[in-house]
Amino acid sequence: MELLKQKIREVGVVISDDIIKLDAILNHAVDPALTTAMGKEFARLFREDRVTKVLTIESSGIPIAFATAQELNVPMVFARRKKSLNTDNTEMYSERVPSFTKGLVTDIMVSREWLGEQDRILLIDDFIANGDAARGLIRIIRRSGAELVGVGIAVEKSFQAGGRTIRESGIRVESLARIASLANGEIVFE
Amino acid sequence: MELLKQKIREVGVVISDDIIKLDAILNHAVDPALTTAMGKEFARLFREDRVTKVLTIESSGIPIAFATAQELNVPMVFARRKKSLNTDNTEMYSERVPSFTKGLVTDIMVSREWLGEQDRILLIDDFIANGDAARGLIRIIRRSGAELVGVGIAVEKSFQAGGRTIRESGIRVESLARIASLANGEIVFE
Repeated sequence: MELLKQKIREVGVVISDDIIKLDAILNHAVDPALTTAMGKEFARLFREDRVTKVLTIESSGIPIAFATAQELNVPMVFARRKKSLNTDNTEMYSERVPSFTKGLVTDIMVSREWLGEQDRILLIDDFIANGDAARGLIRIIRRSGAELVGVGIAVEKSFQAGGRTIRESGIRVESLARIASLANGEIVFE
Repeated sequence: MELLKQKIREVGVVISDDIIKLDAILNHAVDPALTTAMGKEFARLFREDRVTKVLTIESSGIPIAFATAQELNVPMVFARRKKSLNTDNTEMYSERVPSFTKGLVTDIMVSREWLGEQDRILLIDDFIANGDAARGLIRIIRRSGAELVGVGIAVEKSFQAGGRTIRESGIRVESLARIASLANGEIVFE
């Protein structure tokens, strides 16, 4: 998606050889026009798949997943990263995953109420690096009996293994921008 | 907003005299049509205020704030609740606030990059109870030199003091649904 790549070139801050900060458009500030366009693109790519729900994980995936759900006119569900007093753990699918950028493990949870055998799930997230969060969500989808129709990622760091390993497991993964390298502070797209 | 009240009556689960679970539309699953309508309503209410940014806090406020930002065609910024390896704390406005539903304190943070003296901020959140998160965000807005044009809340629990105390401080607060009581498991709107 050319518009996204252009924005990444404009605002991306390369922190190290494997981290790029996209706070200006994805992870802190959000550009509604760009995000709406990303949602339309995911909706176009998965339009034929009779998606019943768009699943993401808090927080940065939410705007993109929401824009996709708007376009497909289906509910959006966001996995939570820990429990609060409002949730009852016996009602939740839960998976423990490491977080690449946060440097710690988190429990990701989706209530059993929102995923079931009748569901056809489109999984959306902002970034894929090692793919731990995505794999945790995929395990949750499998356990619920729902069907995963595919994974939509805004920015894939294709020099890390996440996208590749998920594709190799037979799942369709669509990334709107694929970064091949961040070496020497330079953003190189595939 | 009648549509929101109707949905709250349909899906709201009263947990106690002061907690209502709205996971079906706000806090876990999100109804895109309803959320888009809420965004349009906030945009209508604050259309004349020359808003430059919509500010919210992760996670449940994000879809509503995003829908409002779409309609006003301005960026949306979401405050983060803690730091990750990608953030540098000296660049952040930070406030420590208690969380009513989570039963703990959290640090809320907004990068100095996204709030400045030239900004006119519309603060959006899903719920207001005691108003601690909103007051933390308001302190951050004040410190940045930005102007707060008002606060838009999806669901105000008006039997708790948050909305009232913020209004009493001279800030415009618009709530789309105001719950006067949850006593005896019954949802009573104002």
